[in-house]
Amino acid sequence: MRIVQKFGGTSVGSIERIQAAADIVKAELDKGHEIAVVVSAMSGETNRLLRLANDMNANPPMREVDALVATGEQVTAALLTIALHKLGVPAYSFSGAQAGFRTEGSHSKARIKDVQSKHLIQHMKRGEVPVVTGFQGIDAQGNVTTLGRGGSDTSAVALAIAVQADSCDIYTDVDGIYTTDPRIEPNARKMRNISYEEMLEFASLGAKVLQTRSVELGMRYNMPIHLRSSFDLVEGTRVSKEDSDMERAEISGVAYNRDEAKVTIKGIPDQPGIAAAVFGPVAEADINVDVIVQNIAEDGRTDLTFTVPRNDYQATMDLLEKLRVDMKAREVIGDDTVAKVSIIGVGMRSHTGVAKKMFDVLAQESINIQMITTSEIKVTVVLEEKYLELAVRALHQAFGLDQANPT
Amino acid sequence: MRIVQKFGGTSVGSIERIQAAADIVKAELDKGHEIAVVVSAMSGETNRLLRLANDMNANPPMREVDALVATGEQVTAALLTIALHKLGVPAYSFSGAQAGFRTEGSHSKARIKDVQSKHLIQHMKRGEVPVVTGFQGIDAQGNVTTLGRGGSDTSAVALAIAVQADSCDIYTDVDGIYTTDPRIEPNARKMRNISYEEMLEFASLGAKVLQTRSVELGMRYNMPIHLRSSFDLVEGTRVSKEDSDMERAEISGVAYNRDEAKVTIKGIPDQPGIAAAVFGPVAEADINVDVIVQNIAEDGRTDLTFTVPRNDYQATMDLLEKLRVDMKAREVIGDDTVAKVSIIGVGMRSHTGVAKKMFDVLAQESINIQMITTSEIKVTVVLEEKYLELAVRALHQAFGLDQANPT
Repeated sequence: MRIVQKFGGTSVGSIERIQAAADIVKAELDKGHEIAVVVSAMSGETNRLLRLANDMNANPPMREVDALVATGEQVTAALLTIALHKLGVPAYSFSGAQAGFRTEGSHSKARIKDVQSKHLIQHMKRGEVPVVTGFQGIDAQGNVTTLGRGGSDTSAVALAIAVQADSCDIYTDVDGIYTTDPRIEPNARKMRNISYEEMLEFASLGAKVLQTRSVELGMRYNMPIHLRSSFDLVEGTRVSKEDSDMERAEISGVAYNRDEAKVTIKGIPDQPGIAAAVFGPVAEADINVDVIVQNIAEDGRTDLTFTVPRNDYQATMDLLEKLRVDMKAREVIGDDTVAKVSIIGVGMRSHTGVAKKMFDVLAQESINIQMITTSEIKVTVVLEEKYLELAVRALHQAFGLDQANPT
Repeated sequence: MRIVQKFGGTSVGSIERIQAAADIVKAELDKGHEIAVVVSAMSGETNRLLRLANDMNANPPMREVDALVATGEQVTAALLTIALHKLGVPAYSFSGAQAGFRTEGSHSKARIKDVQSKHLIQHMKRGEVPVVTGFQGIDAQGNVTTLGRGGSDTSAVALAIAVQADSCDIYTDVDGIYTTDPRIEPNARKMRNISYEEMLEFASLGAKVLQTRSVELGMRYNMPIHLRSSFDLVEGTRVSKEDSDMERAEISGVAYNRDEAKVTIKGIPDQPGIAAAVFGPVAEADINVDVIVQNIAEDGRTDLTFTVPRNDYQATMDLLEKLRVDMKAREVIGDDTVAKVSIIGVGMRSHTGVAKKMFDVLAQESINIQMITTSEIKVTVVLEEKYLELAVRALHQAFGLDQANPT
């Protein structure tokens, strides 16, 4: 097999962790695999460098910030290579530029245009390990660019595609994706397999173990991603194309997000353009809106309810109060003690009644559903935060997630 | 004027020092000069990175050590560029590779082969400041290389030559070269001008303000070097081709080195090859030999005396004791309380009697001369360390170095 391994910040956070990563590389190499590695900066290093830049200049030029923070991964790549040599493993570090990562788009949020990594394949075929800096590349003018936070996952998947790897193994500080949060439901079980689509839904719900862009890239090129722990060498969760096995389960997991607040602007005169009139200013204020519900109009007036991150609650309320006056709406109310619970599963596509079952389960527990939103493979409800744990456990059990292997 | 400025470790050792360096760049730019800058790593950073490498692997591969430590200058270059932007100065950082520094030779002690810096001239002509990492380049295979300790001075002079600058200004924590050490002789004066040859002699005697390679490079291409302080913006010492003004003074300065020990192997059977038989093993032990004196043979036997760095004294004595047995020599004696005092001056070439005057001055002070060595522009004596300060002050005064401007 040809494998691209990626080690994130905490997995290379110290001399000892880097040595442990080298041990993992050697173990896979000894199994006869061809290995290339992608590394992040040592944990904390990117923030340290950004702090230096901001101490110097509150508004630093992004070209230079990119050149500065790109050194973080270069340090890790060299150190891991040095550790591999100590184990007798021939290895070479490569910066993004040296590895052929060509990018386009603006500094600090560049996109990978292509990866010219043929020379790395030659090394791999000889049993040598290229150790490549994640998160960075070089643009057409030869400037160092970075992909933005979390970009190392994307680098790893892009490199795996470029060298035609069989798998992209992402080593992190968690050992996989669980059917739900084990801190809430002790019977939560690790999923062995999950589809790209499900992974995207889990990621958007705060399972921040894999950057969304990397999953999308893997999905587009059908590159299997193995999410696993560098602290505990057990099988993790494999993210791949939906296969027939996945059909068995109605849902794969229960996700939640506590970081939610709900706001309502009531009694808006119902006319075309009111959504734009509300969400335009909200977007301009850089507030992310999630679930949106517009009530059926009554007496020529309607209500608009939506959720925002809890941190933005007060700013949103202030903004809506201004809009209320301008729009001649009746009232603004809000609640920053709500939470979001979702059931996710590709099985939903071919099974009916999943949403109804969810609502029944919550009703049996006397949990009031405040808002509902659905996608092809997800049903989300907003409820009072105090019911969060109860709802998660009830759904986890009702959908049989604590039984056998659901996927 | 077109100027290449170089800021060393202590001159970029903190956020504040980097801001001060940016102020200096702007001040020269505001005078209408075209400026490019070469920077070292922040003081301590190179050692920190080397420590990480050695913690990982006592024998790290040099390719990776180069890739690792090269990040030190990259951080400084980006930070100085960010500081320049804050002052409204358009600037761009360049790694050694980006600036066109092409090297040959082995990792960690590469030599600059050529500098392809035409693109930097374009920036300078537009009033933009290229900020280039010192100490590093890229080899023909695209590997990052470093020039070895102190290589940033050499980078600066090489860049100055490549962009056809009028001067290479080296900013450091001293404000120039003095006629002698002001801590010993309060009347020591800063030299305004000094020839490359004199600078090389001062440098070899421990005035470690300019790397020898950089002076040799400046001499070869006749690039004026202005050695000055980043802490105190006064004129420093200009190193350039010997000019007619320099003829006036017999000598330019008095240098010394306290870090000396003297060893003698006595009564060696005098036959061809004895010097090789002694210095071969000494060189193999990585001990630097400086002044060497071989006595006239007497009764078919001769004595060999030489100086070594004081740290190597015991190792040298042990080594000589072994050689004594092998060579059937009579005795090994040594003294680690000697010092070296030199008078240096291009004027010496055309003035006779300088050496005699030196010996007279020392004799008047009843200082015994243990060894003598001369070069075209230098006379060196080895003496008891306790006479060091007395000798320096007597020579400084006798040659009129505390009078007017000697150069």
